[in-house]
Amino acid sequence: MSKLLAQVIHDIQFLPGIGEKTAQRLIHHIFSRDKQKAHIFANSLLEALEHIKYCRICRNLSEDDVCHICTSQSRDTKSICVVEHPSNVDLIEQTQTFQGLYFVLHGALSPIDGISPEKLGIQALDNMVQTFEAQELIVATSTRIEGEATAYYLSDQFSHKIKVTRLAHGMPLGGSLDFIDSQTLARALNTRHTLDDE
Amino acid sequence: MSKLLAQVIHDIQFLPGIGEKTAQRLIHHIFSRDKQKAHIFANSLLEALEHIKYCRICRNLSEDDVCHICTSQSRDTKSICVVEHPSNVDLIEQTQTFQGLYFVLHGALSPIDGISPEKLGIQALDNMVQTFEAQELIVATSTRIEGEATAYYLSDQFSHKIKVTRLAHGMPLGGSLDFIDSQTLARALNTRHTLDDE
Repeated sequence: MSKLLAQVIHDIQFLPGIGEKTAQRLIHHIFSRDKQKAHIFANSLLEALEHIKYCRICRNLSEDDVCHICTSQSRDTKSICVVEHPSNVDLIEQTQTFQGLYFVLHGALSPIDGISPEKLGIQALDNMVQTFEAQELIVATSTRIEGEATAYYLSDQFSHKIKVTRLAHGMPLGGSLDFIDSQTLARALNTRHTLDDE
Repeated sequence: MSKLLAQVIHDIQFLPGIGEKTAQRLIHHIFSRDKQKAHIFANSLLEALEHIKYCRICRNLSEDDVCHICTSQSRDTKSICVVEHPSNVDLIEQTQTFQGLYFVLHGALSPIDGISPEKLGIQALDNMVQTFEAQELIVATSTRIEGEATAYYLSDQFSHKIKVTRLAHGMPLGGSLDFIDSQTLARALNTRHTLDDE
């Protein structure tokens, strides 16, 4: 096989879920059908890599020094939603139920992987809380161990100055009891509420 | 979401099997973990796009004017294996049972999609047969309708000057009768042979 072809088949495998066979299929597809679109993609990837950085305030991905959410006049700056990944911001935005600001940790606490509070930018979060005089920190980290640990750490660090809340856990809407794992069910039972609360 | 980010998420979706959700996951993975490897990949893709072309003789992908198989001194130039895609060449090479040359059609006859014999480079195949004074054309096109039609077309065009053969069809090795479709089974029955033939 051509060296350049072997090289690009090797290099695409850094993407998650793309192994040797898939890489071959994708690259061969490019060379037999879509060289032009591959060109466009490679160039837009390079441009994004060059220009996208972390927002100076909330650490979300942004082309500008400060992202469009942090500079927006229409957001409620009193509540900050803390998420693990930039993609989580998009997911929450899609629900159209949150008007506040975000803070992106880019990970969750994991001493084993060397992910410390400093790496998660807790100091930047503290600055953000002070700058905007925020009144609520909504912790939307995952329910995996690292996400839970991060939630407790944030509560520990911030709850004396500001209200710290966590997303509710429980049954997904439209879900039947039969398909829920017992941990989720236990949590849903423990955090049950009267119907007036909703 | 950042415009550049949205752009690259859009642009990667030309790849087969990569829809909006997967594109988001891949691109977010790049920006939270592997910017450097993404850089390397984008550059090697651009380099491959610039330098890889069709071999002048066999139309396989090659950085050089003539590919390493066509220029090799150790190949048997008397037989030419005709395949639909460059990836098929790699697959046959992996079997280590074929020492001849290849010819890549880059598709199969399909009047509906406008794929004519000219597009498949039949003239180039004719030149190749003459140049190398080949004695056998092994047609390894797919068993889909287009592949079968291409096989018949090649047989029609070349069988008066050169022996034209087709890969055998039948039971896969290690396969049990229970898992073979009836068309394959019918073909295996019709092309049965005495055990001496193997």
